[in-house]
Amino acid sequence: MRLTLLGTGNAAGIPLFGCDCLLCEKARKNRMFSRGPTSALLEIDNKKYLIDAGTMDITDKFADQKIDGIFLTHFHPDHVQGLFHLRWGKGDDIPVYCPPDSTGCADLYKNPGILNFNTQKKFEAFSIDSMKITPLPLIHSKVTFGYLFECNNQRIAYLTDTKGLPPKTAIFLKDKSLDLLVIDTSHAPSVDDSNHNNLDDSLGIHKQLIPLRTVITHISHDFDIWLNENITSLPTDVFVAKDGLIVFDDK
Amino acid sequence: MRLTLLGTGNAAGIPLFGCDCLLCEKARKNRMFSRGPTSALLEIDNKKYLIDAGTMDITDKFADQKIDGIFLTHFHPDHVQGLFHLRWGKGDDIPVYCPPDSTGCADLYKNPGILNFNTQKKFEAFSIDSMKITPLPLIHSKVTFGYLFECNNQRIAYLTDTKGLPPKTAIFLKDKSLDLLVIDTSHAPSVDDSNHNNLDDSLGIHKQLIPLRTVITHISHDFDIWLNENITSLPTDVFVAKDGLIVFDDK
Repeated sequence: MRLTLLGTGNAAGIPLFGCDCLLCEKARKNRMFSRGPTSALLEIDNKKYLIDAGTMDITDKFADQKIDGIFLTHFHPDHVQGLFHLRWGKGDDIPVYCPPDSTGCADLYKNPGILNFNTQKKFEAFSIDSMKITPLPLIHSKVTFGYLFECNNQRIAYLTDTKGLPPKTAIFLKDKSLDLLVIDTSHAPSVDDSNHNNLDDSLGIHKQLIPLRTVITHISHDFDIWLNENITSLPTDVFVAKDGLIVFDDK
Repeated sequence: MRLTLLGTGNAAGIPLFGCDCLLCEKARKNRMFSRGPTSALLEIDNKKYLIDAGTMDITDKFADQKIDGIFLTHFHPDHVQGLFHLRWGKGDDIPVYCPPDSTGCADLYKNPGILNFNTQKKFEAFSIDSMKITPLPLIHSKVTFGYLFECNNQRIAYLTDTKGLPPKTAIFLKDKSLDLLVIDTSHAPSVDDSNHNNLDDSLGIHKQLIPLRTVITHISHDFDIWLNENITSLPTDVFVAKDGLIVFDDK
């Protein structure tokens, strides 16, 4: 499995429209410092799967590549907005594995185009080729799944968006010997948000699940400023996500 | 008034994801031939107004510019999807003039951020500085307004998306001596679509309203191919839209 982070920001992203802070100015000059909507590319056996589709330029990024499937965590616009264009493409249907959300987002269900929505059930694992995927309920304002991806005795848990973990999800993951945990960490310590982890929450989950490595993602503008000033305070096995970063590769 | 077309395609756009026809291959190599979601920039007295917001990269395009207002024709995703990101910006609220659509699109009403939605009434003109704007009902699957923009004795009618015109809209526009008509023309002659004009429909409207010039926009992939083969068949006062083209400038 190879996991590349395509976007690592929250819905507002970095640079923030209309903001002239040093961080945003730096991100406008050098896209290395920008953060798009949180999403990732999972590659396995020459197949490409997206995790979420909030990246606005999916159709450009994958213009000459086949997308073999999409795992949706939930139907908030910053996680699905790239589908509004992608759906009108030509070619084979793209399976979209998603949580049971009867409303979805706007008219995606009504006009799915080449998207083939496959609703999943919590904790009911399914397989694609040699990969086993388990949808894991999270705590968010819209029905949301994280996913455990298992292949070749490697395990990645990708958990966005969430505030804490439901006890059953935490218990399920605790004995999995995770190689990588990717976790929604939108805010600096002690910032209160009923929909997203702050750093305290995520470090607590990191301690609880004991993965080999944790990558914090879905980073807000204010948290990114905080991180720039406090990066050295992170545990050595906890890393800050960056757009375009390969965070796992077992080859 | 200066009107620049930002996007001139339908929801699928050009290049079409997954399509390897000559037109799409050409558009991938040279962005001059691409078509984004139909939208435009109206500039007047150093102020900038968007007509629709389906362009996915609004926050990049206008990173160092103020958007003074947005005229929405309707709430289909290809006309509003750029707002999902823009709304989370900083700074002054952006007024969004829109038709009375109680559902809007996804959670735009629930989480408007810096967007200030101002619902308008059909045929009830309003003014912004020296510009007079009249919302005009159109015929589409979602409640939709075209707009008549009047300033300095110049008149532009911008009518997307629509199939034909409601009689009252046609009568209202007929005696306006339009300098420019921009009209949804998604399809080649005789193609049937209850939501969008084909070229026959638009040429009929052109004859009925007798504007100085008509620009056809919201062009589908198949119509663009048709146009490339039949461009010489258009009347001399009817022009094909292009992304980035300035189609009106009274300076």
